[in-house]
Amino acid sequence: MSEAQSEGRPTIRTVAERAGVSKSLVSLVLRGSEQVRPEKREAVLRAMAELGYRPNAAARSLSEQRTRTVGVLLNDLRNPWFVDLLDGLNSLLHDNGLHMILADGRLNRRIGQDLTRPFLDLQVDGLIAVGTLPDPAALGTAAARIPVVVAGTREPVLPGVDVVANDDEHGARLATEHLIGLGHRAIAHIAGYGAVGDLRRRSFEATMHAHGLADDALVEPSDMTEEGGYRATVRLLSGPRRPTAVFAVNDIASVGALSAADELGLRVPRDLSVVGYDNTSISRLRHLWLTTVDTASHDVGRRAARCLLDRFTDPGRPAGVHLSTPTLEIRRTTAAPS
Amino acid sequence: MSEAQSEGRPTIRTVAERAGVSKSLVSLVLRGSEQVRPEKREAVLRAMAELGYRPNAAARSLSEQRTRTVGVLLNDLRNPWFVDLLDGLNSLLHDNGLHMILADGRLNRRIGQDLTRPFLDLQVDGLIAVGTLPDPAALGTAAARIPVVVAGTREPVLPGVDVVANDDEHGARLATEHLIGLGHRAIAHIAGYGAVGDLRRRSFEATMHAHGLADDALVEPSDMTEEGGYRATVRLLSGPRRPTAVFAVNDIASVGALSAADELGLRVPRDLSVVGYDNTSISRLRHLWLTTVDTASHDVGRRAARCLLDRFTDPGRPAGVHLSTPTLEIRRTTAAPS
Repeated sequence: MSEAQSEGRPTIRTVAERAGVSKSLVSLVLRGSEQVRPEKREAVLRAMAELGYRPNAAARSLSEQRTRTVGVLLNDLRNPWFVDLLDGLNSLLHDNGLHMILADGRLNRRIGQDLTRPFLDLQVDGLIAVGTLPDPAALGTAAARIPVVVAGTREPVLPGVDVVANDDEHGARLATEHLIGLGHRAIAHIAGYGAVGDLRRRSFEATMHAHGLADDALVEPSDMTEEGGYRATVRLLSGPRRPTAVFAVNDIASVGALSAADELGLRVPRDLSVVGYDNTSISRLRHLWLTTVDTASHDVGRRAARCLLDRFTDPGRPAGVHLSTPTLEIRRTTAAPS
Repeated sequence: MSEAQSEGRPTIRTVAERAGVSKSLVSLVLRGSEQVRPEKREAVLRAMAELGYRPNAAARSLSEQRTRTVGVLLNDLRNPWFVDLLDGLNSLLHDNGLHMILADGRLNRRIGQDLTRPFLDLQVDGLIAVGTLPDPAALGTAAARIPVVVAGTREPVLPGVDVVANDDEHGARLATEHLIGLGHRAIAHIAGYGAVGDLRRRSFEATMHAHGLADDALVEPSDMTEEGGYRATVRLLSGPRRPTAVFAVNDIASVGALSAADELGLRVPRDLSVVGYDNTSISRLRHLWLTTVDTASHDVGRRAARCLLDRFTDPGRPAGVHLSTPTLEIRRTTAAPS
């Protein structure tokens, strides 16, 4: 590399200077060492982002060291929202001679493990993070070494990391306008957390506001589980202003809402309409047949695979946020208020 | 190795002679080559089994080549029966410094891929096959190279491969006797396939016979999916002898049974009792609250991990079938016939 190039292009040395740490500490971060303290690691990652530092991933991807394997980090195997996304991912990766191996973020989280570490140790060619993961910094470290794509969620936003997801604002608007269109006024949202939870909640509130229903909008927080949806619905239905419709942040929480209605003697959809989000296999159980937002997961998966393949050939390409358009699946759990 | 030892202990040469193939073909099988025709591969695996051939896995596990990673092959990510089993596996593997990576057999099956190949290429230390996989021969090939354990199913039975599962005969008897004890006579079984399906069906039939109800036992085949359970139940409820209770081969098929009853205007459990198998998260949805057989999956997972760890230290130890005792979870879908 010529002197001119090294001036124009960030190196480990310039990253170390910017972060106020040693070159060897930057190397440790690049190798994903667990011996680096979080605040140091974050300083290094911030410096890399600010300088636009990229390791020479192109050289790596052209070498014979490739394992032809892509690691997929799932956030929680118990919620089957990711199944179609994996199908979409797999279809394109397989066409390009790549195998997919998976890890369950929930299991790793419980044991306090860096999620990306086993995959990096096995020298996977790339990583796809599916859903919201607990440790964004670890993803940044991985992204400094191999191509990384975030799919099915909106965070973390990291330099050189494409984000592929459904348009949560659009989806939440579809769900809310469906309920408003049926004639509901007192509508509750069972909210979630993280970037996805925030986007869906804000869109619900904005849509209610746009229809002059800001005062009729109720928001009840949840942990995005079935139990959380159940408890939020019990609170809503026991409160002073009982809603006639509930839009939940995901299908699992909606199932909890259905159970709560059932136990309180309310019939769905006659006494309470319920809309979910994700169009999971659970929502498609004939016994539930839940109205929900389809997140175009297969499409999200295919586009995430496309982003990864593109980054193999051009590691320096700018990263972006790619949104698929969700649609509403109207099933049995919504109707006009009685 | 002395001449005496080589006589007593099978080698690649003696395996090749027994199988009537070349030594290089045996090597190809050991390397998991896809260029070996299935009948040749089976002949080699049979010869290995007959001779008790074991590659020197002990030497391998003690070398520095260990990745400290265990590959877990899941049969189908869409059916969440394996979640507790993974928890059990992970708890013990993690205590021993091992990471778990996963692959979805359904995705690989669709593309005609040898399931074990990516894991072998990544040089995992061991493999755990969870649930019934489509290609037992591939598992045999893997087992000739690294420790392999089969968990949550009863097949394949291979030399040097422990099988850890729940006692399907006992579980099916519990379910059937529960229905008989409630007063049901005309009881139907929605059957599955494979070793597990056969064991559950035969135990249902034997239990009915033991209670003098052989003539009241109905068996309807299914593909073990929700849709399959739905169609089997529609056939049963439209037939000449309508059963008052259904015991399905798994929870997913039971959910189909619940939907079929619902659509035909029958109330569960008043008009029809339904029992599932697996105690999945789906059966625990408050909205379903399905009576089912708990397969002690966490225990199965822990024991499978134990078997793998034991085989790391003693690759030549005899393999066995280890059965955990299932229990009945009585919930909302079973009652006395009205």
